[in-house]
Formats: sequence, C-alpha cells, structure tokens
Amino acid sequence: MAYQYPEALNRLVKELSALPGVGQKAAQRLAFFLLGKERPAVVALARSMVEAHDSVHPCPQCGNFTDQPLCPICQDSARDRSLLCVVEGVSDLISMERSGAYRGLYHVLGGVISPMDGVGPEQLDISALEKRLSDPAIREVVMATNPTAAGGVAAQYLAKRLRRPGLRITRLAHGMPVGGSLAFVDEATLDLAMSGRRDL
Amino acid sequence: MAYQYPEALNRLVKELSALPGVGQKAAQRLAFFLLGKERPAVVALARSMVEAHDSVHPCPQCGNFTDQPLCPICQDSARDRSLLCVVEGVSDLISMERSGAYRGLYHVLGGVISPMDGVGPEQLDISALEKRLSDPAIREVVMATNPTAAGGVAAQYLAKRLRRPGLRITRLAHGMPVGGSLAFVDEATLDLAMSGRRDL
Repeated sequence: MAYQYPEALNRLVKELSALPGVGQKAAQRLAFFLLGKERPAVVALARSMVEAHDSVHPCPQCGNFTDQPLCPICQDSARDRSLLCVVEGVSDLISMERSGAYRGLYHVLGGVISPMDGVGPEQLDISALEKRLSDPAIREVVMATNPTAAGGVAAQYLAKRLRRPGLRITRLAHGMPVGGSLAFVDEATLDLAMSGRRDL
Repeated sequence: MAYQYPEALNRLVKELSALPGVGQKAAQRLAFFLLGKERPAVVALARSMVEAHDSVHPCPQCGNFTDQPLCPICQDSARDRSLLCVVEGVSDLISMERSGAYRGLYHVLGGVISPMDGVGPEQLDISALEKRLSDPAIREVVMATNPTAAGGVAAQYLAKRLRRPGLRITRLAHGMPVGGSLAFVDEATLDLAMSGRRDL
C-alpha cells in the first residue's frame, strides 16, 4: 500500500525527482527541506529559477551562458583570438576557465557526445563551428571533448571535418591525473601515459 | 581566477547549493539543466515549490505533513488508537507506512536527534507528546527513533520521561537486516542480533 503525500507535495516530489541526479529519496528530502523553510526563502529560490531562465541565454558566438549580447570571453579583447577550444558543454568551459590554463576563445558543442544515448558526433550541429573556422585569424583548434571513448571518436571526427591548410588541430594530452595513484589509474590511461612519456 | 557566472545564474547556483545534499558541482548541473528546459517546465517547478509550501503544513496532532486540518492517518478511524509510534521525522513515518508493518498512530518529534549538531533529546519539544499520552486510550508507545547511538539515547530518555502505569513502552527490534550479509554487518548490530536471538 503506497503512502500518499498531500497532492501539492506529491507534485513537488515528482517534479524534483525529474531533476538530474535526484532520485525518489533525494526528491523527498529536498521537498521536506523546502516545507521546513520560511516562505520567503522558498519564494526566492522559485524566483531565482525563473529569473535565471529569463535573463541567461547561450552566447550566439560560442555557446557559453551569458546575460549579455556576447559572453564576457567573446567580448574580452585580451584573449588570444587565434585559438579556439572546442568543448562539449558549458560546464567543461567553466572547468577550463577555473584552471587558468587557457586564454583563447571557446566553442561549446552544446551536446554531450554519447553514442549510448544516440548522440554521435554526426548529431551535433557543427555548421556554426565550421563557419567560425572560416575566419583565417583562427590558427589552432584545441579539441577538449571529454577523455572518454566517445569523446575521442568525436575529436577524430571533428578533426577530419574541420581540417584546412594553415589550421593546427590539437587535442588535450592524456596521462596520469595529478595527485592520482598508479594503483588506481585505469589501464587505458596508463597505456596513454606510457606511450606519451616525456624526457626529464 | 574564479570564473563569474552571469548574475542571475550565480544567484541560482548559490541558492541551489544551499539545498541538502547538493554541493557546488551538483548545483551547477541543476542550474544548467533548468536553463536548458522550456520556460513552462521551469515555471511549473517554481510554482510547485511555493504551492506545496502554501498548502502543506504539519498535522497539529501528530506532525505528519498534510493539506487537511488533520492528516489522513489521524483521521482514519480504522487505525489502532491504542498504539503510538514515535519517529524523528516525517520521512521515517513514510518509511514505516510503506512497510505496512504498523496500523497505529504516530508522533513526529520533528527534529532529528543529533548530539553532534547540538540537538539532544532535551532540545526536542516533547510537551505535545506528553499531552497526547495523557489520553488513557494509548496503551503502548513504540519508540522508532533511528537505530543509531543518538537514537538509542533518545529512546531511553523519552521512555524515562513518559513512563506511567498501564503504558507499555517498546522499541523496534535490532538485528540483521533482511538481505544483508554477515560479512558486512557491523559488530554492534551483530552483537544485538546475537543477544536477541530467538528459538526456531
């Protein structure tokens, strides 16, 4: 005999459990947490959700999230405009920015490549990327698709599609994660770390 | 150099990361998911949050969540009104209901007992519970606080406070979880399972 929540609570739990990474138990916990908060805090969260949706949109040039006509990275004249880094999602762009390792421009593919879910590189819209690369100022494309089998296939596929004279196409290095332990590194990574070893 | 989200997105990520079990990464993932949804779906979730908060409140008798003057369990004349089960939170009540193992009434303490967070049994408001127990129709109180050290202490404390002639005070049995494996059961549980062994 299933326990019935009050109707409004039932609807809330159902909608929360549709969020990514939120199962039935977590949805219930979130809903109970919200019921226990003061009303203004709940209203503020609800309002933030809608306001973010209304004010934030993908940058028409690179696909980064922004509330401006162009995102701050595309607007930044100090960035190296000869470099274009291709990532699957905005979260990858943000990770890259937080590392401080890159000072060029980005292109967000806007779809996580996952053949298991029927999303191959062919399903991604790369016409915008091709158009950007027609700009001769861009001298190098850094493929920063995820270091997975699917990400590797996508990088190879895109490299083949985008290759043109004078354009260098590179890919992030594979190898040992810093702070990792040999004993816990998977074999494929170890294989690539070994074949890509460098002189000391 | 920290990457700055657009302001409305920043606010949303911050508010989402204040939810229980939602860290910075999960908050970003949820926010990006919401940005990628159609506006009506986001509005629906936002509205559900506020509507649940507005229509659902604790049952004034037992503390269960309800949108009625009394919760369905307290209203149900088929329940055994001589039995009162004391739980820490509404989620415990729901787990118990889903098991179908119990047909009495409940009392939700409304605070998870956690001495680490400064919440001892003394901090819980038990005056409502004491008042309910003044009803001579109640013949047994089942302590269903969590099977933790803190929950055990709370059960002992409450039993001492609530004891009166003619009132049986019991506690859920400890023992091997069904489907568990001897090899993975902790020593305290095994100890209790052994001392509480029963004839076959």
